[in-house]
Amino acid sequence: MLRWLTAGESHGPELVAILEGLPAGVPISIDGIRADLARRKLGYGRGARMKFEEDQLDISGGIRFGLSMGSPIALRIGNTEWPRWVDVMSASPVDLDTLPKGRGAALTRPRPGHADLVGMQKYDFAEARNVLERASARETAARVALGAVARAFLDGLGIQLLSHTIAIGPVRVPENSLLPGPGDVAMLDADPLRCFDPETSARMVAEVDKAHEDGDTLGGVVEVLAYGLPPGLGSYTHWDRRLDSRLAGALMGIQAIKGVEVGDGFLTTTRRGSVAHDELVQTDTGITRLSDRAGGTEGGMSTGTVLRVSAGMKPIATVPHALRTVDVATGGAAEAHHQRSDVCAVPASGVVAEAMVALVLADSVIEKFGGDSLGEPRRNLDSYLAAIPTT
Amino acid sequence: MLRWLTAGESHGPELVAILEGLPAGVPISIDGIRADLARRKLGYGRGARMKFEEDQLDISGGIRFGLSMGSPIALRIGNTEWPRWVDVMSASPVDLDTLPKGRGAALTRPRPGHADLVGMQKYDFAEARNVLERASARETAARVALGAVARAFLDGLGIQLLSHTIAIGPVRVPENSLLPGPGDVAMLDADPLRCFDPETSARMVAEVDKAHEDGDTLGGVVEVLAYGLPPGLGSYTHWDRRLDSRLAGALMGIQAIKGVEVGDGFLTTTRRGSVAHDELVQTDTGITRLSDRAGGTEGGMSTGTVLRVSAGMKPIATVPHALRTVDVATGGAAEAHHQRSDVCAVPASGVVAEAMVALVLADSVIEKFGGDSLGEPRRNLDSYLAAIPTT
Amino acid sequence: MLRWLTAGESHGPELVAILEGLPAGVPISIDGIRADLARRKLGYGRGARMKFEEDQLDISGGIRFGLSMGSPIALRIGNTEWPRWVDVMSASPVDLDTLPKGRGAALTRPRPGHADLVGMQKYDFAEARNVLERASARETAARVALGAVARAFLDGLGIQLLSHTIAIGPVRVPENSLLPGPGDVAMLDADPLRCFDPETSARMVAEVDKAHEDGDTLGGVVEVLAYGLPPGLGSYTHWDRRLDSRLAGALMGIQAIKGVEVGDGFLTTTRRGSVAHDELVQTDTGITRLSDRAGGTEGGMSTGTVLRVSAGMKPIATVPHALRTVDVATGGAAEAHHQRSDVCAVPASGVVAEAMVALVLADSVIEKFGGDSLGEPRRNLDSYLAAIPTT
Amino acid sequence: MLRWLTAGESHGPELVAILEGLPAGVPISIDGIRADLARRKLGYGRGARMKFEEDQLDISGGIRFGLSMGSPIALRIGNTEWPRWVDVMSASPVDLDTLPKGRGAALTRPRPGHADLVGMQKYDFAEARNVLERASARETAARVALGAVARAFLDGLGIQLLSHTIAIGPVRVPENSLLPGPGDVAMLDADPLRCFDPETSARMVAEVDKAHEDGDTLGGVVEVLAYGLPPGLGSYTHWDRRLDSRLAGALMGIQAIKGVEVGDGFLTTTRRGSVAHDELVQTDTGITRLSDRAGGTEGGMSTGTVLRVSAGMKPIATVPHALRTVDVATGGAAEAHHQRSDVCAVPASGVVAEAMVALVLADSVIEKFGGDSLGEPRRNLDSYLAAIPTT
Repeated sequence: MLRWLTAGESHGPELVAILEGLPAGVPISIDGIRADLARRKLGYGRGARMKFEEDQLDISGGIRFGLSMGSPIALRIGNTEWPRWVDVMSASPVDLDTLPKGRGAALTRPRPGHADLVGMQKYDFAEARNVLERASARETAARVALGAVARAFLDGLGIQLLSHTIAIGPVRVPENSLLPGPGDVAMLDADPLRCFDPETSARMVAEVDKAHEDGDTLGGVVEVLAYGLPPGLGSYTHWDRRLDSRLAGALMGIQAIKGVEVGDGFLTTTRRGSVAHDELVQTDTGITRLSDRAGGTEGGMSTGTVLRVSAGMKPIATVPHALRTVDVATGGAAEAHHQRSDVCAVPASGVVAEAMVALVLADSVIEKFGGDSLGEPRRNLDSYLAAIPTT
Repeated sequence: MLRWLTAGESHGPELVAILEGLPAGVPISIDGIRADLARRKLGYGRGARMKFEEDQLDISGGIRFGLSMGSPIALRIGNTEWPRWVDVMSASPVDLDTLPKGRGAALTRPRPGHADLVGMQKYDFAEARNVLERASARETAARVALGAVARAFLDGLGIQLLSHTIAIGPVRVPENSLLPGPGDVAMLDADPLRCFDPETSARMVAEVDKAHEDGDTLGGVVEVLAYGLPPGLGSYTHWDRRLDSRLAGALMGIQAIKGVEVGDGFLTTTRRGSVAHDELVQTDTGITRLSDRAGGTEGGMSTGTVLRVSAGMKPIATVPHALRTVDVATGGAAEAHHQRSDVCAVPASGVVAEAMVALVLADSVIEKFGGDSLGEPRRNLDSYLAAIPTT
Repeated sequence: MLRWLTAGESHGPELVAILEGLPAGVPISIDGIRADLARRKLGYGRGARMKFEEDQLDISGGIRFGLSMGSPIALRIGNTEWPRWVDVMSASPVDLDTLPKGRGAALTRPRPGHADLVGMQKYDFAEARNVLERASARETAARVALGAVARAFLDGLGIQLLSHTIAIGPVRVPENSLLPGPGDVAMLDADPLRCFDPETSARMVAEVDKAHEDGDTLGGVVEVLAYGLPPGLGSYTHWDRRLDSRLAGALMGIQAIKGVEVGDGFLTTTRRGSVAHDELVQTDTGITRLSDRAGGTEGGMSTGTVLRVSAGMKPIATVPHALRTVDVATGGAAEAHHQRSDVCAVPASGVVAEAMVALVLADSVIEKFGGDSLGEPRRNLDSYLAAIPTT
Repeated sequence: MLRWLTAGESHGPELVAILEGLPAGVPISIDGIRADLARRKLGYGRGARMKFEEDQLDISGGIRFGLSMGSPIALRIGNTEWPRWVDVMSASPVDLDTLPKGRGAALTRPRPGHADLVGMQKYDFAEARNVLERASARETAARVALGAVARAFLDGLGIQLLSHTIAIGPVRVPENSLLPGPGDVAMLDADPLRCFDPETSARMVAEVDKAHEDGDTLGGVVEVLAYGLPPGLGSYTHWDRRLDSRLAGALMGIQAIKGVEVGDGFLTTTRRGSVAHDELVQTDTGITRLSDRAGGTEGGMSTGTVLRVSAGMKPIATVPHALRTVDVATGGAAEAHHQRSDVCAVPASGVVAEAMVALVLADSVIEKFGGDSLGEPRRNLDSYLAAIPTT
């Protein structure tokens, strides 16, 4: 069982994350985690904050001499802007009158599409600061850092993940486009939208430019692929052991995600049964599937072919042409608070989705193969694969 | 915390389900559970099995004099066909030579799109009987029974659920169709496809007929609506507390579901930010949203407007024109086992989806309002709502 | 992860239990489960109920041809007295006036030492029937049945459990008595008190007789031993992964248990450090401990020597010379309800404690070794043991 | 549901802890947490480390302006000795030859009574450094900090905790000694052994002195009391909902604890039923118990009287006169590593036990009363208490 918690506010001193349950002996590169944090800022259409926000990464525990220790792993991601927020986000009581006028002002105009209004109602806050500080997507930096750790574990077992953008607003890669492979990550990260199809990428850039001109924002769809999985992660025996169920929960658990698909997803629902599944044939090395419509799962289990899941992100809710709202201090109509923001965060959300998938897969591997040091699940995985008959 | 487990095989003596954590004092009608079990068989395009399979319901514990006791609730759903399967599904060892030729034969031709092949690999079975017995959708009867119990609890708090079919194969209800309300359940259940739009329903019937003639099967999309939710179920504070995350995991945890959406889902990803969210205005009774594109959640929390989630079901994988597979006993090419089956099970999957949503919502209500007898969460809910300011 | 739930009332139609997460291929003998259920009734000092209560065992799912299927296992234990309780414990509403006078009467005099009064307060009941029906120790029959299943799994890995009585009231086996081994179970079960020391057993019989004459009841202490454990179950890395923590929670989770010890427990707290621990020496086959004061755990992990935990049971609270209480219907002083009862249930509680320990150990084995069919954890365990250096 | 994780090594840069699920609006004093951290170092018989180890506390998230925000709370406790350990505990790879000879030397002589040997076997370590760094009781500082937060929440509901020492080695407070109350904490903390009975405390001091002279160590027993609990926390309906089960697991989850009792515990097992329970009588303000032998729980639920649980700690295993062990590098006999240590850590373990009990109780309160801001569970608790009839 892999457990993890994150903490920290968007403008607080730092994000903190703890991952509990990872075997010992996993090689973990701190620079590798930093690289993933940098990848979270990729993508055409990001605002100014991404540039000056630097992620300071510190390891508090669980890693020694570059290897996991089996103990909980704790990471901290410092906020370089913290000195400007020391008073507004102080953990100790402060004299509210001394707060700076701008950053310290009460946020009484909840933004549609955000957690603001319901968060105030649920937690009994008079204004939205406490809500948006935690609901902000900045928290995903902590998940990306943990995802990098999970990925290091998977990598030690020959499992590799990547993500790519398949739609920005209405612009979508053609059906049956080639899928990127593990060797294509650098190319994807270099593409402005992290799209594998250059022609579509160019159209996506144009779409972002257009939205920017119009003072508007865009959503889109990302897809995560995992190569090298063994058959049999997850299970059909109880609903919450299903790998697809866990992946769906993890992806829908990312801020702004409104839809999740496994394999061909909703497209499959429009097909007839005779052309919707993956037929089986015998080859020299075992039974193989003739297609991958299912996205690498059958009966809630990994099949051993490439896993493929996608997540649909709504357009950013902080719209430059502000949306209508109510000022809760007065009850009067108002325009929503508009914090500095991006046109489109879809490419970055692919990196977050990778992290969530990595965490789910690492947990599923540990569930099936057990083990307390990297050699142990590796040995158990190998002997399991050796025991599966080729017919 | 609400916990539940189901057990039982498709052709075993019975399904069993235990629900733990429900408050005492909830009025639970056994006939009401039976009615929901009957609704799970609804829908144009079901095969013969639905007709002769009768669900025998027994209460083993947790309910007394029509009220829950706070103790775990246990239900059993007997299999009226059991006498024909006593030997093939015997819990005790049997002389395999004495098994009937048909039902007792080894299932060595795993069906594409089913758990068969991976299940055999994962659990080290030489044939697929043990796999399909549990992976079968018959297990959802147990969930529907528990869902009826969860719904009884929600009903006691003024929360009402329903589901309807919004697509069968490529036939879909028009965008912006009217949503059914709590009063429309009888009408929905009377419709052949449980579709709220009569014109679309007629086209769906035609689509089913056509697939039936062609020896093929169909999938589709169902939507679940919940009315009467308070704002603030779920939370933005940690990903796995998000209501949308939990709902997505629960819906994707249903057999054959390949996609899940909250509100307008993937459609939202194609919109621009200025027209993708639900603006807020002040009215006499409080702040109201001008639309429900989000599906009743913001920041992973219920907003208090109608909750709306949908699930996409792949076409039934047991196709009359059998799919190609491999006979694992010989390694030779073969046609997949074809068990008696349906053309389309989408309308019934809506009833299962209702059950899963009901269980998630009941758990979320208990999480927020606590309480050990029905009056307690009701009282706590009322005082919470009274404390929310109207501006 | 092994999950399990039980349901059912003391005088309801049956107890039901589901165990989820057990690998496939575990040989499970239904007669073996029945034998354990019979052992739960052993012991000098039991009342009449134990004699006429017969445990009818049925398997609802998860076992086929004598082997677990990897699917949830469901068991039912029928109540042969049910026909006499059909009305009083009816799941459907009944006309309360038609209930039999005795069994149907309201239980308004809560018994000290039982869940009665607090249960009524917590769940908002006007009388105690609903409380005692579930709080009753009859529920432990369901645990014993599941424990027998868990033990079958452990047995497949060479791990064997037993329990014995070490104290009845003030009569206790001498310090440093010989511990029973796996071969002594039949002898223990044949002893009136399930005590391994014949001389002490005789004194215990006399103590029970004396209490019976005096219209009083007795408690005592049982000890559970597990042989054949590998080193390294549980962990020091987080408190709730500690094997001793889990065992303590499981044992204290049995009705009437008020104290739990690991190894020499409280006795160890009175010793000095120089004589309280188990020194290590090298032998031909590896490092060995010179004593087992710790009870087979260090740092919250199994050491590989015999595991030894004990649980202290309070005397039965239903005392023939009834205790003082209040009639909640009148507010007046009263004598507590006195249901038919035993003088001493300690020997039986050892069998329940075995079951709880078996469930914890099976879960810990699955956590460390993973696996979906019995051969898999066995293979993984063997390769782990082979990899541990002998020095 | 309250979840929490801790991370960090004994000589690493810091301990980190995250607590997830606490309602908003709880007043949390950072100085109050610091005060509890200081209390963890109390007690006659502590070694030098306690003196120069200063706990640097930082809040990373979840608290603003002195109030919890409903978001996860993250705390860091810095290690002032870290500069001396930067290389030996480096998260990044280092050149092992450059490590300082003393602190950097391989720990190949596992200490009996510690996690050392089994930890090396389980996690595949060649020496014990990685094990003892995490298994060390220094980790309890993180729990004490979280426990202080949990206590702040309980305090807001009128629930107060304290702990006291009831035995040091063979020296024990007399049976039926007066129990300390919430007002006695300062006096307890001022006592050398945190013992409420001055005469016993003096004998305990003498016992510690004697052990110190003899180069030996001592264990003992601490008791935690909770005042102001409502009836009905925990439940009899399922074993793992029992409050006593949870408390036992939490207390046994503390390093070096070998026994746990609720109320009179093992003493109760030696009594007869007629004098082992707490009889009920009617008073003006409701039903009252005439004694508190049960320790404030019946049927696994809080009764509303003072909760009383105790934990037995083994003597410190790092004994000045070193224990026999094996050098795993050579296979030869050796003396166990002897790190700087204490004669007796029992008084401090009381503070840790308080923290664990506070975390369990806070979780139980949230389970029963729900709520997202402090006013909500308070309101729900009040209306529950008002609804309990006085007879």
